[in-house]
Amino acid sequence: MKTRIEKDSIGKIEVPADKYWAAQTQRSSENFKIGGQHMPLEVIKAFSILKRAAAAVNVDAGILPKEKADLIATVCDEIHSGKLDDQFPLVVWQTGSGTQSNMNVNEVIANRGHVIQGGKLEDAEKFLHPNDDVNKSQSSNDTFPTAMHIAAYSKLVDETIPALETLANTLHSKSQEFMDVVKIGRTHFMDATPVTLGQELSGYESQLRHGIKAIKNTLAHLSELALGGTAVGTGLNTPPGYSENVAAKIAELTGKPFVTAGNKFEALAAHDAIVESHGALKTVAVSLMKIANDIRMLASGPRCGIGEIIIPANEPGSSIMPGKVNPTQAEALTMAMAQVMGNDVAINIGGMTGHFELNVFKPMMIFNFLTSAQLIADSCLSFNENCAKGIEPAYDQIKENLNNSLMLVTALNTKIGYDKAAEIAKKAYKEGTTLKAAALALNYLTSDEFDKWVDPALMLGR
Amino acid sequence: MKTRIEKDSIGKIEVPADKYWAAQTQRSSENFKIGGQHMPLEVIKAFSILKRAAAAVNVDAGILPKEKADLIATVCDEIHSGKLDDQFPLVVWQTGSGTQSNMNVNEVIANRGHVIQGGKLEDAEKFLHPNDDVNKSQSSNDTFPTAMHIAAYSKLVDETIPALETLANTLHSKSQEFMDVVKIGRTHFMDATPVTLGQELSGYESQLRHGIKAIKNTLAHLSELALGGTAVGTGLNTPPGYSENVAAKIAELTGKPFVTAGNKFEALAAHDAIVESHGALKTVAVSLMKIANDIRMLASGPRCGIGEIIIPANEPGSSIMPGKVNPTQAEALTMAMAQVMGNDVAINIGGMTGHFELNVFKPMMIFNFLTSAQLIADSCLSFNENCAKGIEPAYDQIKENLNNSLMLVTALNTKIGYDKAAEIAKKAYKEGTTLKAAALALNYLTSDEFDKWVDPALMLGR
Amino acid sequence: MKTRIEKDSIGKIEVPADKYWAAQTQRSSENFKIGGQHMPLEVIKAFSILKRAAAAVNVDAGILPKEKADLIATVCDEIHSGKLDDQFPLVVWQTGSGTQSNMNVNEVIANRGHVIQGGKLEDAEKFLHPNDDVNKSQSSNDTFPTAMHIAAYSKLVDETIPALETLANTLHSKSQEFMDVVKIGRTHFMDATPVTLGQELSGYESQLRHGIKAIKNTLAHLSELALGGTAVGTGLNTPPGYSENVAAKIAELTGKPFVTAGNKFEALAAHDAIVESHGALKTVAVSLMKIANDIRMLASGPRCGIGEIIIPANEPGSSIMPGKVNPTQAEALTMAMAQVMGNDVAINIGGMTGHFELNVFKPMMIFNFLTSAQLIADSCLSFNENCAKGIEPAYDQIKENLNNSLMLVTALNTKIGYDKAAEIAKKAYKEGTTLKAAALALNYLTSDEFDKWVDPALMLGR
Amino acid sequence: MKTRIEKDSIGKIEVPADKYWAAQTQRSSENFKIGGQHMPLEVIKAFSILKRAAAAVNVDAGILPKEKADLIATVCDEIHSGKLDDQFPLVVWQTGSGTQSNMNVNEVIANRGHVIQGGKLEDAEKFLHPNDDVNKSQSSNDTFPTAMHIAAYSKLVDETIPALETLANTLHSKSQEFMDVVKIGRTHFMDATPVTLGQELSGYESQLRHGIKAIKNTLAHLSELALGGTAVGTGLNTPPGYSENVAAKIAELTGKPFVTAGNKFEALAAHDAIVESHGALKTVAVSLMKIANDIRMLASGPRCGIGEIIIPANEPGSSIMPGKVNPTQAEALTMAMAQVMGNDVAINIGGMTGHFELNVFKPMMIFNFLTSAQLIADSCLSFNENCAKGIEPAYDQIKENLNNSLMLVTALNTKIGYDKAAEIAKKAYKEGTTLKAAALALNYLTSDEFDKWVDPALMLGR
Repeated sequence: MKTRIEKDSIGKIEVPADKYWAAQTQRSSENFKIGGQHMPLEVIKAFSILKRAAAAVNVDAGILPKEKADLIATVCDEIHSGKLDDQFPLVVWQTGSGTQSNMNVNEVIANRGHVIQGGKLEDAEKFLHPNDDVNKSQSSNDTFPTAMHIAAYSKLVDETIPALETLANTLHSKSQEFMDVVKIGRTHFMDATPVTLGQELSGYESQLRHGIKAIKNTLAHLSELALGGTAVGTGLNTPPGYSENVAAKIAELTGKPFVTAGNKFEALAAHDAIVESHGALKTVAVSLMKIANDIRMLASGPRCGIGEIIIPANEPGSSIMPGKVNPTQAEALTMAMAQVMGNDVAINIGGMTGHFELNVFKPMMIFNFLTSAQLIADSCLSFNENCAKGIEPAYDQIKENLNNSLMLVTALNTKIGYDKAAEIAKKAYKEGTTLKAAALALNYLTSDEFDKWVDPALMLGR
Repeated sequence: MKTRIEKDSIGKIEVPADKYWAAQTQRSSENFKIGGQHMPLEVIKAFSILKRAAAAVNVDAGILPKEKADLIATVCDEIHSGKLDDQFPLVVWQTGSGTQSNMNVNEVIANRGHVIQGGKLEDAEKFLHPNDDVNKSQSSNDTFPTAMHIAAYSKLVDETIPALETLANTLHSKSQEFMDVVKIGRTHFMDATPVTLGQELSGYESQLRHGIKAIKNTLAHLSELALGGTAVGTGLNTPPGYSENVAAKIAELTGKPFVTAGNKFEALAAHDAIVESHGALKTVAVSLMKIANDIRMLASGPRCGIGEIIIPANEPGSSIMPGKVNPTQAEALTMAMAQVMGNDVAINIGGMTGHFELNVFKPMMIFNFLTSAQLIADSCLSFNENCAKGIEPAYDQIKENLNNSLMLVTALNTKIGYDKAAEIAKKAYKEGTTLKAAALALNYLTSDEFDKWVDPALMLGR
Repeated sequence: MKTRIEKDSIGKIEVPADKYWAAQTQRSSENFKIGGQHMPLEVIKAFSILKRAAAAVNVDAGILPKEKADLIATVCDEIHSGKLDDQFPLVVWQTGSGTQSNMNVNEVIANRGHVIQGGKLEDAEKFLHPNDDVNKSQSSNDTFPTAMHIAAYSKLVDETIPALETLANTLHSKSQEFMDVVKIGRTHFMDATPVTLGQELSGYESQLRHGIKAIKNTLAHLSELALGGTAVGTGLNTPPGYSENVAAKIAELTGKPFVTAGNKFEALAAHDAIVESHGALKTVAVSLMKIANDIRMLASGPRCGIGEIIIPANEPGSSIMPGKVNPTQAEALTMAMAQVMGNDVAINIGGMTGHFELNVFKPMMIFNFLTSAQLIADSCLSFNENCAKGIEPAYDQIKENLNNSLMLVTALNTKIGYDKAAEIAKKAYKEGTTLKAAALALNYLTSDEFDKWVDPALMLGR
Repeated sequence: MKTRIEKDSIGKIEVPADKYWAAQTQRSSENFKIGGQHMPLEVIKAFSILKRAAAAVNVDAGILPKEKADLIATVCDEIHSGKLDDQFPLVVWQTGSGTQSNMNVNEVIANRGHVIQGGKLEDAEKFLHPNDDVNKSQSSNDTFPTAMHIAAYSKLVDETIPALETLANTLHSKSQEFMDVVKIGRTHFMDATPVTLGQELSGYESQLRHGIKAIKNTLAHLSELALGGTAVGTGLNTPPGYSENVAAKIAELTGKPFVTAGNKFEALAAHDAIVESHGALKTVAVSLMKIANDIRMLASGPRCGIGEIIIPANEPGSSIMPGKVNPTQAEALTMAMAQVMGNDVAINIGGMTGHFELNVFKPMMIFNFLTSAQLIADSCLSFNENCAKGIEPAYDQIKENLNNSLMLVTALNTKIGYDKAAEIAKKAYKEGTTLKAAALALNYLTSDEFDKWVDPALMLGR
């Protein structure tokens, strides 16, 4: 591999000749050969936004030449467009402040800018200095958490919430469609009084609607940006008004309501906003687990299970059992949600272990956050498209189950009391007969009364 | 032990002669000899409120005689006052619907009411029937989650939030008091640029204020009551308007803004509100871990640690090391918060494992929720009273550390650039000299410039 | 309340006149009003063993008069017998070293010994000094982890493992009993090829047998005792040979193979043995979740579920649905196992947060460990007695399901190939016919061949 | 993209013309566009071993022509060598049985074998059938868990354990090297009695040695292979002796002691071996958290922290603070270990949620297992090479701290008693003097006695 020499305050180091990154990026890539999980590109792209915003505000403050800021903006646009994706080689498992990823961005902007301006990567002096120009009025300690919030907020608003809404909408329309399909209810996994299939689906929809609200409740904290705190939260080396101006600029560039954090010391030293917001994501994961489990169980069979709904058959289910069809979308969804619940614990541990002025579990926290948000988004859309939209009632099975149920006896509580009703149900169960036969045998009511009172259609609260 | 005979639909059973509970409570206490964790009294007391409310609404609906409702109300008041605490022997590890705890309340109300009315426990016929009267228009499946929400909401609003506010207020006043105490900042646990002690404390306060907001964001979901859903969410066996009326009655009795749940199917089958709200509690636990760790580390020493604050010495610290004093309140607080983070996982698992129309991890979920909410409340008040209120700066150590720090060099970035500033810091570190000596030796600035530019008091962003 | 004055190095303090504890216990009870979880009595009783052992070894080393050691032994026996249970008022949420619980034991032994010897609690001078005599050659830092290991090891060996074996034995005999009951198997919750009920139960037994082995694998680490490390692991203030001798004495007193820890620095500063062993407990929790879920699902119905087994009906299942029976033991068991999985996270967080020479999450860790070990023991015994022992096949349902299943077609793979077999199954499913009808219609085999090849009894690998 | 038509029992589908995979792989890649986490190549390579072993045993059993088995072996070797890495496009979030990844392997072997044999991908008839030949005597349900165990066992034995041993060895030699460097000990993060730096490091080594043992304890369960269970554990469609023979063949091919699982029903339906073994990994994660935290704290400073050790400076620590050096390897290691602890929860949830004859969280479980095992291996090696090997004592700071400590007073317990010793320490602390000055002022011992008794070198238990 052809290399060139770059240097930093530690000394000289060889870097690949054709890459824009410089000494610090190279050092980190050599010192941290751990796992293969790269710093998410969402974080890199968030950096491109904040670097551009900082440069603009620095120009306004009179501490950066416009020419330099324009060059920075140009490279930031290239980064944001994805053109330079191969310039960010670092992994998640680096310094806990993400310093070298900040420097990776600074170095790429400085060197790429220098080249755009007509210079060469080998030039001893560059037009842009990664620290003094690109990182001006910034520290890793405030830029990295700013990038975390931009990336997290955007992922939730642009992908996770819309995907949840898509699935909730499908559940809503299916719920409306099947609102009159009366079926047996089940409590304790045991036969209970009737519900409609539409009512069941409405419960799932309600869970998701509440989950979306829960996520939205956390957006205000996520919208607070650390930028302007620099090294320890005091804002050392920033011009007056910088925090507010740079947040406004980021809001403008993203079209999202970002504001400067009310307390920069918290914003560097703790990532409670990430913890809080991921807490909402794990709540949604809990909901989706319940929903997907129900659907796989309702679809179980085809002949020896619950079998009250039919879901699409998308692929051969077995390499050995011919003709088998499985609830594979529910399986993928529940596996993904188990991951989200695990990620929550990793995030908690990272969040709680900050010390003094800086939390140094930043890359791990945002990596897990974005993974969870993406998994929820993708698996909801996949489940929606390949399963939920195709749910159909298995009318015959639904009808057979409903008619067999002993729990229709509950309707008699208000007529003959709980104790006598229990006697009827127990007799029917023991003797394998119908409720009506047992009721008449016990002489607790007439045949007409039974038919009038024990009517599933009247037991639905509608 | 003297006993009497009670019976239920399973048959007869002996119960202690002097207890108000009847057959179902007795059965559960015999069948579930597991652990020693009792159903929290907060849940029992919440039941007393909802039973009273249900009775009142049943009277209004014309399906319960006022005489019976009055008797129910009388016993409910006794339960709420704590007078009958020894009548609720069941453990958490029972049926997952909490059915026997609902029946425990029904039985105690029925029997105690019968006795108040002049009857005897041994009477074959009682004035009140536990199912047909006390449980009228109810099911365990909607009463238990209603009791969960009443208990959880009340605990948060009456204890957890006020305790957090108390600690936040102390941190606020301490922060104000020490806002000018300039000290070294630390990032990566390493020396960094200066902050004030007040700024550090303001970060902790900000964490708690955000945490309180996070908890409050979850109250709306918790304020939704399942009551009126009865067995499976359809509201079978309830009179018209019951759900809304009973929620209004509970709101009136508690003085809290409870409303009927928009979707009863969710309200029985899932406890996402508990999961969501506990997610906020674990966020607070993460915050408190960080805060308590910082305080224990800042107080470390007295002679060989960080030693920048002094905390109260409340007890001898060691059974072997004479004169030792330890940050014991921080230790208790962090242990409690580890528990809260563990409880969160238990709650997630419970929340995700509901099936069809009913979640049957109810007692475990509310047990963990109330434990966490109580632990946060108690440990915050204990930490506040016995530690936070007594925090004082260790001025000598603060001053010595500050003057020694090499990171004051950061102020020179904007004057001579990052690279030269780094050279100064490295030289001073290597040679064990002061920054100023190194700076002058390198001839990068004059003595006057150094004194003017490198001033901790100007590095605080204030 | 009548009080007397006690003092420690902090000063004087009032304690209840009739209690044996002294100043440090009193201080802790006043300073830590947190939660209600008491230091487990198992820990206190383990202390009574180690205090007695230490005294004996101190006598042998010539540094404690035999008279004092005898008195200490007498009180330790009282503590172990439960006679002094009300003398240990402290909660889990105290100092993280458990120092005040060690002092609580020291104080009670010293004062109770003094009284036994004829003295009065009010005497200024006592016959035994809590630190210089009772705590001789000890520190909280080595006694508390020693008590943790004694308590944890004993709980596992005396209760948890026997309970698991009891349940495994029941599953074994039920498995043997039902080894020829051929039924449908299920994969992905969908119909699959046949198994026998006995084979299913054998899988559960195998899980538990492996789980017991997993627990036993961790006992060696748990058998290592910290005692002899004193304050920081160096063994300061202990006589020669003390560590080995005191471990041998404890082994003798308990009848369990305790040894002195190979490295005392680890033994004080980390509780990896607790983390490791609880890791085995959570593995067992995972197994029990699976087993209990299967059993509740297999028993579901009675008319609209899987319904292939019948489990005992122990209590009325519903306050509103008469005659309902629920799998309540499975519910209690799964709730308890969710708790164990949550406790595991709390223990991990405690275990990872030790600093330098001491982990200060000790009380929380042992509290959770003992809770989990007890919950597994109790809930296994309850499940065994009230559910597992009563499992019976529902022969009719088993037979009907088996005969309906389309997955019997798998037997044809080796005769006509996967593709043709799949065609048969799909045709039968689509047209609602039997496999045989579909097979013959497709002309892939003769009626005789079908009957010979598709025989559930030949599909069991036995 | 050029495509060709492939088909399966669902129907026809276009696949990329130049890929060996066929219809089922293609379907899964289209139906599961979730996340970007690919099925780990370790699993694919484990499949190549078991497919080859199965083919060989099928030949011996006379049910597969040798020519076909040889062809299968040839392709398996190609897969194992990495030559076909781009033929396995599926993600983790697919069916929970991993069926389509099994089919992916079957399809690639069949098609690649056909091509090697001279055929074309477009041929209607292929020489090898993915189900009838390559999957002969197998099901996804037994092959996937077999691949899980092969991959997990191999990763632990080949990478994780050696990496842990490497770090433990470094800690051992550093411990020996610094065994006489006396320094202050710390308990509760507060000054305590002395230890040597070597003793501290020996504690870390002991943790890792115990951790390695804990992992090894779980290998026996992991060495059990499910292969031979086929669809539901009964071994349907396998020849006599198959299970034992195929396990022996795999043992031979891998050089690892794999055996056939004693109970195949467990082996398909539960993955307790994965849960158990990952429990050991999370124990190691807990240990490494403690170790890395200690090292970062001991290295803190350089001037305002604990500062008792010096660690290598590998990269510029700050983008804003010139000359800053941070404990970045400790940060990467602790972030990775937080991830392992999160993964543990995901694995628990997967492990507990199997139903009946099959656990369908398989891909998620092995993905997390391999991630954790790799993260431990990589981050230990990185930490070892870039941090641990370079640890040096900061002698000046160590000496200054030691001489200042008040806890040396503990040596006086056995001479003058705890109470008087405490008085000395408190006086010295309060007055800011030395222990000796306080001791003499109190007249509790002579100057000579003090010098003789209070000697750090005698307080080390060596």
